[in-house]
Amino acid sequence: MFGIVGDDLAGAIAIHGVHALQHRGQEGCGIASFDGKRFHTERHMGLVGDTLMRPGVADRLKGRAAIGHTRYSTQGEPTIRNNHPLYADLGVGGVAIAHNGNITNARALRALLTARGAIFQSTTDTEVILHLMAQAVRATMIDRFIEALSALEGAYALVALTAGGVLAARDPVGIRPLVLGELEGAPVVCSETCALDLVGAKFVRDVLPGEVLVLSERGVESQKPFAPKPPRPCVFEYIYFARPDSIVNGRSVYDVRRRFGQRLAEEHPVPADVIVPVPDSGVPAAIGYAETAQAPFQMGIIRSHYVGRTFIEPTASGRKLSVRRKHNANRSQLAGKRVVLVDDSIVRGTTSAQIVQLVRDAGAAEVHFRVASPPIQWPDFYGIDMPNREDLIAAKHSPKKIAKKLEVDSLGFLSIDGMYWALGENERKTDAPAFADHCFTGEYPTTLTDFGNDEAAKDVQLSFLE
Amino acid sequence: MFGIVGDDLAGAIAIHGVHALQHRGQEGCGIASFDGKRFHTERHMGLVGDTLMRPGVADRLKGRAAIGHTRYSTQGEPTIRNNHPLYADLGVGGVAIAHNGNITNARALRALLTARGAIFQSTTDTEVILHLMAQAVRATMIDRFIEALSALEGAYALVALTAGGVLAARDPVGIRPLVLGELEGAPVVCSETCALDLVGAKFVRDVLPGEVLVLSERGVESQKPFAPKPPRPCVFEYIYFARPDSIVNGRSVYDVRRRFGQRLAEEHPVPADVIVPVPDSGVPAAIGYAETAQAPFQMGIIRSHYVGRTFIEPTASGRKLSVRRKHNANRSQLAGKRVVLVDDSIVRGTTSAQIVQLVRDAGAAEVHFRVASPPIQWPDFYGIDMPNREDLIAAKHSPKKIAKKLEVDSLGFLSIDGMYWALGENERKTDAPAFADHCFTGEYPTTLTDFGNDEAAKDVQLSFLE
Amino acid sequence: MFGIVGDDLAGAIAIHGVHALQHRGQEGCGIASFDGKRFHTERHMGLVGDTLMRPGVADRLKGRAAIGHTRYSTQGEPTIRNNHPLYADLGVGGVAIAHNGNITNARALRALLTARGAIFQSTTDTEVILHLMAQAVRATMIDRFIEALSALEGAYALVALTAGGVLAARDPVGIRPLVLGELEGAPVVCSETCALDLVGAKFVRDVLPGEVLVLSERGVESQKPFAPKPPRPCVFEYIYFARPDSIVNGRSVYDVRRRFGQRLAEEHPVPADVIVPVPDSGVPAAIGYAETAQAPFQMGIIRSHYVGRTFIEPTASGRKLSVRRKHNANRSQLAGKRVVLVDDSIVRGTTSAQIVQLVRDAGAAEVHFRVASPPIQWPDFYGIDMPNREDLIAAKHSPKKIAKKLEVDSLGFLSIDGMYWALGENERKTDAPAFADHCFTGEYPTTLTDFGNDEAAKDVQLSFLE
Amino acid sequence: MFGIVGDDLAGAIAIHGVHALQHRGQEGCGIASFDGKRFHTERHMGLVGDTLMRPGVADRLKGRAAIGHTRYSTQGEPTIRNNHPLYADLGVGGVAIAHNGNITNARALRALLTARGAIFQSTTDTEVILHLMAQAVRATMIDRFIEALSALEGAYALVALTAGGVLAARDPVGIRPLVLGELEGAPVVCSETCALDLVGAKFVRDVLPGEVLVLSERGVESQKPFAPKPPRPCVFEYIYFARPDSIVNGRSVYDVRRRFGQRLAEEHPVPADVIVPVPDSGVPAAIGYAETAQAPFQMGIIRSHYVGRTFIEPTASGRKLSVRRKHNANRSQLAGKRVVLVDDSIVRGTTSAQIVQLVRDAGAAEVHFRVASPPIQWPDFYGIDMPNREDLIAAKHSPKKIAKKLEVDSLGFLSIDGMYWALGENERKTDAPAFADHCFTGEYPTTLTDFGNDEAAKDVQLSFLE
Repeated sequence: MFGIVGDDLAGAIAIHGVHALQHRGQEGCGIASFDGKRFHTERHMGLVGDTLMRPGVADRLKGRAAIGHTRYSTQGEPTIRNNHPLYADLGVGGVAIAHNGNITNARALRALLTARGAIFQSTTDTEVILHLMAQAVRATMIDRFIEALSALEGAYALVALTAGGVLAARDPVGIRPLVLGELEGAPVVCSETCALDLVGAKFVRDVLPGEVLVLSERGVESQKPFAPKPPRPCVFEYIYFARPDSIVNGRSVYDVRRRFGQRLAEEHPVPADVIVPVPDSGVPAAIGYAETAQAPFQMGIIRSHYVGRTFIEPTASGRKLSVRRKHNANRSQLAGKRVVLVDDSIVRGTTSAQIVQLVRDAGAAEVHFRVASPPIQWPDFYGIDMPNREDLIAAKHSPKKIAKKLEVDSLGFLSIDGMYWALGENERKTDAPAFADHCFTGEYPTTLTDFGNDEAAKDVQLSFLE
Repeated sequence: MFGIVGDDLAGAIAIHGVHALQHRGQEGCGIASFDGKRFHTERHMGLVGDTLMRPGVADRLKGRAAIGHTRYSTQGEPTIRNNHPLYADLGVGGVAIAHNGNITNARALRALLTARGAIFQSTTDTEVILHLMAQAVRATMIDRFIEALSALEGAYALVALTAGGVLAARDPVGIRPLVLGELEGAPVVCSETCALDLVGAKFVRDVLPGEVLVLSERGVESQKPFAPKPPRPCVFEYIYFARPDSIVNGRSVYDVRRRFGQRLAEEHPVPADVIVPVPDSGVPAAIGYAETAQAPFQMGIIRSHYVGRTFIEPTASGRKLSVRRKHNANRSQLAGKRVVLVDDSIVRGTTSAQIVQLVRDAGAAEVHFRVASPPIQWPDFYGIDMPNREDLIAAKHSPKKIAKKLEVDSLGFLSIDGMYWALGENERKTDAPAFADHCFTGEYPTTLTDFGNDEAAKDVQLSFLE
Repeated sequence: MFGIVGDDLAGAIAIHGVHALQHRGQEGCGIASFDGKRFHTERHMGLVGDTLMRPGVADRLKGRAAIGHTRYSTQGEPTIRNNHPLYADLGVGGVAIAHNGNITNARALRALLTARGAIFQSTTDTEVILHLMAQAVRATMIDRFIEALSALEGAYALVALTAGGVLAARDPVGIRPLVLGELEGAPVVCSETCALDLVGAKFVRDVLPGEVLVLSERGVESQKPFAPKPPRPCVFEYIYFARPDSIVNGRSVYDVRRRFGQRLAEEHPVPADVIVPVPDSGVPAAIGYAETAQAPFQMGIIRSHYVGRTFIEPTASGRKLSVRRKHNANRSQLAGKRVVLVDDSIVRGTTSAQIVQLVRDAGAAEVHFRVASPPIQWPDFYGIDMPNREDLIAAKHSPKKIAKKLEVDSLGFLSIDGMYWALGENERKTDAPAFADHCFTGEYPTTLTDFGNDEAAKDVQLSFLE
Repeated sequence: MFGIVGDDLAGAIAIHGVHALQHRGQEGCGIASFDGKRFHTERHMGLVGDTLMRPGVADRLKGRAAIGHTRYSTQGEPTIRNNHPLYADLGVGGVAIAHNGNITNARALRALLTARGAIFQSTTDTEVILHLMAQAVRATMIDRFIEALSALEGAYALVALTAGGVLAARDPVGIRPLVLGELEGAPVVCSETCALDLVGAKFVRDVLPGEVLVLSERGVESQKPFAPKPPRPCVFEYIYFARPDSIVNGRSVYDVRRRFGQRLAEEHPVPADVIVPVPDSGVPAAIGYAETAQAPFQMGIIRSHYVGRTFIEPTASGRKLSVRRKHNANRSQLAGKRVVLVDDSIVRGTTSAQIVQLVRDAGAAEVHFRVASPPIQWPDFYGIDMPNREDLIAAKHSPKKIAKKLEVDSLGFLSIDGMYWALGENERKTDAPAFADHCFTGEYPTTLTDFGNDEAAKDVQLSFLE
């Protein structure tokens, strides 16, 4: 998610901004710009580099203000009509909106809005915000925006493009990240600092939980229209979602991951000849592990550059041709060795089992698996794609049992307090945890209206609309 | 380049095989199969994962024999009609051919063949092989194939699909690699062992320089129809072309690169706080450097997963929006530190200068550049894409001058003997060098008919056809 | 426009139905079907034969009820999002709607609906009907449909697909045509009888002006919810819009056109060697003219089959390469002859001038132009694409002046009473004209809220949304 | 087929030229131009108006010389690689070639050429001409062209683009038409005069059978390198292939067709209320019939403008939804009447039967079928698409039997002498027929090497390549 006001190349800059954020969503992407009179939108299925970067696209995005988005559908099907930015002509003017996160009462709000005459064009949770704005009672665009936000529950970082500038907002507990920057005097907002780096902008500060900003040619105005709450940013940004070169909530993602690895080596030491990451997300933790363990770090598994998009297996045959398309063993670093494999997390466990097999087939003498996060036992409802609880291997099995299933010589997970230590906290404060860590603890930071809002709900993952 | 005979899924296996070899050519790709009666071809511009892996493609490639190719055009324009495999109906039957390398007398042969009535359909050097076969005097397909090869000069690894099986050949000095494998009894040939790994095949042996193989349902037959010569495989496969998980000419590519780094640390030591690779190709050398230098290895530069395809800059503006699209500084590992940057090679020097700037902007105290290969001073004519001599920074400037241009605190190149050491030789034998190392020495392993074949020729890089 | 309920092939039949109605709109086309549970839509830019008739489309349109449309944009830009059928999920269920005609207070209604919180997805006048239904106070779908219609002004023939069946309606004065048919027991509605012929359905009767029908598995129910008005169907359907093989409002279109020609021969006789139509729309009138004039009818102008789609002139050169792409002179029937050219109408006069030139170039001795309709002096606002008043040649020039501009030896227009005679009326009744004939008389059959509703308004042709 | 030399807009003019010749081939189209240095080609599947007329295409066709073609595959599959113009780089320079007609010894020549080392890129008969030129012994391009022609058998009108100008040739008996024109001093060749009309060129004369022309900036040079033979142009150009506004071999196509109808009325008179053509090709004959029969001519069948391209039936259902997509009855002119239906020819009889049924369903009292050509009893091998002999209804059944199958009240074919009369001959001269009329007589004007060249061969229609 990206927004900028005050540059003649706003559209082109927004394209580059979302290119830096491609890892946050690979299904689709889009930009909206405003040229003082008209809105222009470009929305495409596929990667930024394959679509928005085609010749001519940037030129069509006229104007000095633009917002952009890369889509990752945890709510609503992956179709062009669900791609952000969504646009609407309201009575008070046009507005384009892009959203990162998940509204946990969108289904309930949609039913109410439809009963009042709203016609939805998409199946995304985001569109409820547009209809809340359209039916709001207050007069100005910014007041309608705040009125709409006050009805929301869940996680959101939002940018909205209007004739009066770019509106930006972060939910009251700050689950998803949002940062403010500046490019030669023009204010910029985006999900991660790596996007500021790419467009050459300076980092100014994090947008605060519950804060609403108006970015315009005159600069940045801030409001805090909601009752303050203790922040609880999502811990998964550090575990694997954010890019390692980003600074999220004041912490270097790379550094936190390396510290996950250092602590992991303390918590689960083992004699080893080589420390091998599952690339790419396991690399910083493996480096940290190797540092503490005083053992050699080697790229014992090679990741293909050419995977990263979903494709259909060309044959339905029983032969598993694809297993090694993404990862291959680097035999020279594995054969005959005691190997510590370091990965960022275990979700279903299926990929982990395949990688262990790969390492065994390459002749490893021992395989010790180390996981740079605690066991994932509960689903997420805030924008991280995760399976139903029943498919989470750690929700059903003890670490000992998992070790057996993965056929490893030993298995170690990072402890919850170890995770907090790496994040710069002494420990998890039970009454006021500093992060949204529900996947490990089952304690959700917001109500979950659409999901029944109780213990039973955690077992189900509803898709938004059938 | 990939070939297999004797599996009902030959087409699908070949698709997976070329997927593993995607790094050898990203412009286009293609497969040809033979079902006992008819040839089937699929040729596409773009990546394997975007084209050949679409639903239905594998099913159309019927038969138990198939060859495949990924194209990287150093000769002939990047158009669909130049994509391999090229197919021709000869009087003796159909033949599809795929070629890795470069024929250095193709232009001369083409003129001769055209004068004898040949009509070319492509602008590739490879098509001369088909016309040589068509106009050959000998009777059988295999004899015509060998007759055609005997007219060639330059570098080639070839696979050809015929009704009688897959023919494979490697040029007399073995410039480009080619390996033989086996998949559940079916013989396989391919450019690198990583493709054997992906399809689950076992490595059997390297195809020897000057060897011609016939792969069929009956197994593998070998011929050595040409006068033996001392092998001189291309050293660039080790420097950056091959995948690190491949075993090329009996040597682990990863291991050789790590040894490049170890030796580099010995040749050009410097006090440093952190050893940082230019990812991805600089990683093994940086690990080796850090091992010898006893300094911490960190991923101080982050590479985007979403670059790797060429795209057009969306705006012609003077602002350099794109510089950081591929690489970004990981500020937390650079600020205030004495940094050793390790890259695989320097060609033009432009990217290197940008990366140094990136590291400086992130606050590095000192930047020391280390190059895991000797200075490149001469162009390649055997299939490695390289600019004219005048654009090779090391052809015009001394290391000292280059250091100044890159604005680094120090610069060190690996020595030629150091390179040979890492490859397991004691040193370069002047009268019989073990590798094709012309880019560093100006000594070419074959004649260069199309390029004038003398000193002056090295200054020009001709494009094949205007 | 086409609708059917009660056939397992409803989708495929609707595709064929709209194929027969292609002449009513060439920009885009679409079908919606309902399978008892879900709605399915297929909307495409381009011709039915190029889009909806592709393999697989009909199969995706599951269900026993379907509606279809071919689009011709006199309101709203030609984009996919403006293509009909438009679909909305209302609180009371889903509805897809297709509209032929033009709502003349759509702009005013849109402003009102937006102020009440509606978000429009298209720029068509038709979408106001969906929002009127969404915000209606009555409970059932059919009641909401009628409530919405009661707010409309202008011309409409409508079909709407709902879970309860297909709703159909014709505006109170019946400007656009709509007929009811039956296909093996299944009720069908469509714009013209030629669509009934193509799908093999029987004609039942015209839908009456102001009538609302519900087509369902149980048959057809009729309502007349609006105050009755004297019908005034559009006379342009007869002049050139409808297909000659259709029966519109009980009259054969071919027969009316032939009678236009017969009367024209009486009103404007001239000695001639040959009567030549401007094909194809001028053919029946020319046949009628030749019958009355007792002169030979010949195809003296040949029309290319391959024109009929708009394309861009391949070169901006001053040379008029394109003039004869659509029509060419058949020299053998023109050279040395006294030619009577018969066309259906004159709008701007530019095409007419080119055709006269064509005939002169072919060596005609005399050229007499006969027009099978009165002079067009006022714009249309009901769905016939026509230029601003200032571009209508007959709004600015007398027939004598037009003759001079066209460089013809004589020119004759059909009189208004002649036109009524051909339609089976004795004459035009000034106080209660039987047809919407505003283009000739300036008397509009409805109010024109969006266009200022007075004399001045006739001079402007507003586009709906900027 | 079209060619022009000496106009800066040669490419754009050629596009318009082939647009006028679209009826001669709808599968694909192409243009080649030469700008003094380079050849440019544009080849597309589909219609000229959908492909070559897209913006930018004409601009890419640089140069003052161009040739064009519309493809209709009676030999070789409909694929882009078979589209004309075919291009080849010969030793003596580049040549692009376009061909109308059919080489009847192409298969034999291809075998000979392949044995001599030729590699074919297409499956068209035309490519043999390029290989004959490539392997020719004479030195210049024009001499090689003539040397190639001397090996051909069958029907050809050819244009070839070379650096030295446009070469044009017509086979020794002139089966396919070819005319010479002039556009503001620039020489033009094309298949029919209608293409001259469209581009604004003057007709100069027919290219003579056996004549070879060189069109260049200096004008037109003519050679007659072959032994003279009595001309026998194809009679099917008059029956239905050529456009009615063309003058073919000095005769107006429209006039000949009208005379076919006049003679038909004399040969097969019947009392009738209305004379109705099967549009569009039956129109001139029906007008002629009506003139002689003194009966009213009416468009009793309406043809849709939107058919003319092949499409796939959207549903496999048994219901014949498509029958009336192309033709519909105009009930008002048929009901209760004695109808004479006039069509240009009967091939298989299936369409005729459907049309008769259509007319009967519309209430015709009597249906009399009149065919403006003799019974087709033998296949064509010269470029007219026709089924195997066994599918020709008149090859198996007498007119009386055909009448029964079509369920008509009477049936009449034009006599062979009647056909010759309409063409301006007194009768068919048995020893020296003035036209290629083999489909009616079984007497072929050339040898048919590929087809066995004897009586038996007439029963088979070989496809060129499997």
